[in-house]
Amino acid sequence: MTEVQSLPLGTDNTLYTRVAHFYARQMRLLDEGDAEGWAATFTEDGSFAANAHPEPTVGRANLAAAVRRTHQELQAAGVKHRHWLGMLSVDALEDGTVRAFSYALVIATPKGGQPVIHRSTTCSDILVPNGDSWLVQRREVSRDDLV
Amino acid sequence: MTEVQSLPLGTDNTLYTRVAHFYARQMRLLDEGDAEGWAATFTEDGSFAANAHPEPTVGRANLAAAVRRTHQELQAAGVKHRHWLGMLSVDALEDGTVRAFSYALVIATPKGGQPVIHRSTTCSDILVPNGDSWLVQRREVSRDDLV
Amino acid sequence: MTEVQSLPLGTDNTLYTRVAHFYARQMRLLDEGDAEGWAATFTEDGSFAANAHPEPTVGRANLAAAVRRTHQELQAAGVKHRHWLGMLSVDALEDGTVRAFSYALVIATPKGGQPVIHRSTTCSDILVPNGDSWLVQRREVSRDDLV
Repeated sequence: MTEVQSLPLGTDNTLYTRVAHFYARQMRLLDEGDAEGWAATFTEDGSFAANAHPEPTVGRANLAAAVRRTHQELQAAGVKHRHWLGMLSVDALEDGTVRAFSYALVIATPKGGQPVIHRSTTCSDILVPNGDSWLVQRREVSRDDLV
Repeated sequence: MTEVQSLPLGTDNTLYTRVAHFYARQMRLLDEGDAEGWAATFTEDGSFAANAHPEPTVGRANLAAAVRRTHQELQAAGVKHRHWLGMLSVDALEDGTVRAFSYALVIATPKGGQPVIHRSTTCSDILVPNGDSWLVQRREVSRDDLV
Repeated sequence: MTEVQSLPLGTDNTLYTRVAHFYARQMRLLDEGDAEGWAATFTEDGSFAANAHPEPTVGRANLAAAVRRTHQELQAAGVKHRHWLGMLSVDALEDGTVRAFSYALVIATPKGGQPVIHRSTTCSDILVPNGDSWLVQRREVSRDDLV
């Protein structure tokens, strides 16, 4: 998997925007607690690794279960999470996949309270084309407080 | 008003960027306290509804008055607000309008003090074309701490 | 240097995205402490002015030295900084340069601790073309807590 030195924005200027759009929709599914909808934005064998967890979560069923569990805990605690991705950079790889690197914040708002930054992280994805959009093949999230 | 299933990014890839650019300019007007300039980014009969208020604010004169009042209160308190929109998704509707959904934060910085997240919200807009740019016909803001 | 009234997004829709992409890569260099890499995103005589400092920092060697110093202080303190730029607006100027205005946050995460917003600022840049990308000729950063 050879990296293309720099994204040829002049010839494929829609790539950056399409990835940004994908993330907006994907994070909204997550924050709304649509566990199956969110898991469906990964490939069947998609994996989610995080420096907060010893093992990656692999496959849509496991990914959905993790979201369902977290969402139920948040609802019980009366806390709303919003995932913000930003500072996105995108590299088209020669095998047709895309490597997307971004910063990601989790904003947590307690019912009746003040929002805080729950987490500051980086998110490194390998995306595979899926019609007009993408599927996440591999995600690696690194929490800044743990490194 | 039938929703188009997914934005045809391949054929109209500028839409996403144009909406993002519009918001950057619009929020800057708001944060600088340019009440009339900000109100002019709404249609004449534009409305602003929020779950924090019992009734929507309707029409440019009322919209400008609300901004003027808030800006004066902030200046008296020595607090600077910055409105950040992100995680934007855009749907072109069949009637030529655009539905834009985003997350929005209000960052508040007291003079000589530490910035905090004043609000975490969602922003759902109906935009109508206005030359190269847009006008907001209807905005609905939902504060996360109130839901 | 006459300002073009509004960015002709219809005819040069890649400009906005290319500038956003440039910032993502540039801020990542900064946050990773790559002082020389970051300084190389400025012109040879590039300047960085801030309302927190009496004099601008001018030239790549001085820019790199400032980043190196700050990065060492942060590492000694066990704090990770992430620079987020957003709410970007872009104006193409007649001399071929680009004026980019954005909001910028510095998110600070202490090892083992909770992220906070360290700074809320505005960032006003003059960018000059550099192949597919840009170089910063002049940057002016204004901290909201100081104005």
